[in-house]
Amino acid sequence: MKLSTGYVRASGYAHKVRRVLFALVRRRVEPKEVVRAAGELNQRIFDRLVEMKVDKADVIRVTVPFSIRDGQIVWDYENLEIEVYRREEEENLARAMEEVEARERELEERIKEVEEVALRLKELSEELLERIERLKEEHTSLKIKAEE
Amino acid sequence: MKLSTGYVRASGYAHKVRRVLFALVRRRVEPKEVVRAAGELNQRIFDRLVEMKVDKADVIRVTVPFSIRDGQIVWDYENLEIEVYRREEEENLARAMEEVEARERELEERIKEVEEVALRLKELSEELLERIERLKEEHTSLKIKAEE
Amino acid sequence: MKLSTGYVRASGYAHKVRRVLFALVRRRVEPKEVVRAAGELNQRIFDRLVEMKVDKADVIRVTVPFSIRDGQIVWDYENLEIEVYRREEEENLARAMEEVEARERELEERIKEVEEVALRLKELSEELLERIERLKEEHTSLKIKAEE
Amino acid sequence: MKLSTGYVRASGYAHKVRRVLFALVRRRVEPKEVVRAAGELNQRIFDRLVEMKVDKADVIRVTVPFSIRDGQIVWDYENLEIEVYRREEEENLARAMEEVEARERELEERIKEVEEVALRLKELSEELLERIERLKEEHTSLKIKAEE
Repeated sequence: MKLSTGYVRASGYAHKVRRVLFALVRRRVEPKEVVRAAGELNQRIFDRLVEMKVDKADVIRVTVPFSIRDGQIVWDYENLEIEVYRREEEENLARAMEEVEARERELEERIKEVEEVALRLKELSEELLERIERLKEEHTSLKIKAEE
Repeated sequence: MKLSTGYVRASGYAHKVRRVLFALVRRRVEPKEVVRAAGELNQRIFDRLVEMKVDKADVIRVTVPFSIRDGQIVWDYENLEIEVYRREEEENLARAMEEVEARERELEERIKEVEEVALRLKELSEELLERIERLKEEHTSLKIKAEE
Repeated sequence: MKLSTGYVRASGYAHKVRRVLFALVRRRVEPKEVVRAAGELNQRIFDRLVEMKVDKADVIRVTVPFSIRDGQIVWDYENLEIEVYRREEEENLARAMEEVEARERELEERIKEVEEVALRLKELSEELLERIERLKEEHTSLKIKAEE
Repeated sequence: MKLSTGYVRASGYAHKVRRVLFALVRRRVEPKEVVRAAGELNQRIFDRLVEMKVDKADVIRVTVPFSIRDGQIVWDYENLEIEVYRREEEENLARAMEEVEARERELEERIKEVEEVALRLKELSEELLERIERLKEEHTSLKIKAEE
């Protein structure tokens, strides 16, 4: 298997690596391992970006083969490739990727709002069940939780 | 403290004891202990009803003092009192209590239906959060569960 | 068809008439008509109770035949029967029915609580859909409400 | 005010116009009007893209001033500007924008899933209220909908 970040601003490669990895290995690797493996790879990439003096406004593209062994992601660092598109040479690309990043932040705001309401919904559905439980305890012969 | 079942058909005393006890000791005694203590008392009442040859269609009234010690209900069996109203002597009372029992069964049907929908609501709110989590994992930099 | 209230305290006959009627004609008569028909019958019963000098603590039993014509409930007042059990003669019955009434008030408290949470759940599920709509409007090409 | 699409593939400009417009005029313009105004502008842009022989894989950037009068969006077509970046000249930009489009389609899949669950949640919360209403009608004296 091979992870490919696609074009991404150097400032945002770490998140992109993780997102792409999540989509690639869903149902085959545990989320915790995805987070760990992404973190490990991101450290490597970071070191290389520093070496290459990549600026956060430059655009990069990372590809790296990997395998899954016993539920673990093993990176083939030998074949890690990082292409760099310097801002001064690829101005439009750099600006376009900057816009993409800005849109993502707005998207995240919206998703955070949706999640907050969903969390309140879950809490409320739990409160509902508690109240129904009390109704059952005090007014019915229905099987209650304390009997389970 | 004192538990009093009020008028109840002999057939339904056990449930009545538990319901009344739940209402009386809420927030002071754990549900499991309420169930246990009700079960213990009900066994005692049952033995006495057998002794007194009480029929399930007779109406009874049970009162018994109790105390709460270290979260446990301790029945004062010395002062357990059971009044019996035989069906043949209190025909209207017996019939009225039979009706009450029948209504309760219908009420339980309705409450069971409400509970079923509430349970599905809770499951669905959990499924919603899972799908939002996937959305976050694959498309955002928001904090995800695997990072906690 | 025949409506029968069963034993009920004179103080609570009106609610009992309505509840029993709702259960009897569900899906055949509109709720508004159930409320109207119950109100009409209750007025009649009330007049008779006044005539008979029935006290609110007495227990009564009302039966009345009725038919449904074009979705309307038509009471056969000719055959309206009201049995009265005076408190002084049927003391246990009167007390038992008083207890039943008190338990019902507690039940109503619990059901009101459940309903309040259910209403908040519905509101929240609507808020959730609004936020998802905004997410769709600003970040996707998915079909939105304004296009319908 | 001024709408600016940012960099976008020619194939996807219409959706981008609408999304950006929604974010810009939220709470000041009705959704239906946003949809209408976006449609109107998109037709103009389309005609110009045809004139300029823009390919769907080319990247464009559209800016156009507008004003809001009586809740309506009025485009200042005189000042409509369309920049075109041909694929052959800006290869990396074109590919990057293609990736962005592909990611958006995946995002939409996830959002659609979230919405479906949210819709089922709303339906279920309505079913819950109906069942509680029946419980109230048949077992309580609480105010019911048919009385409102």
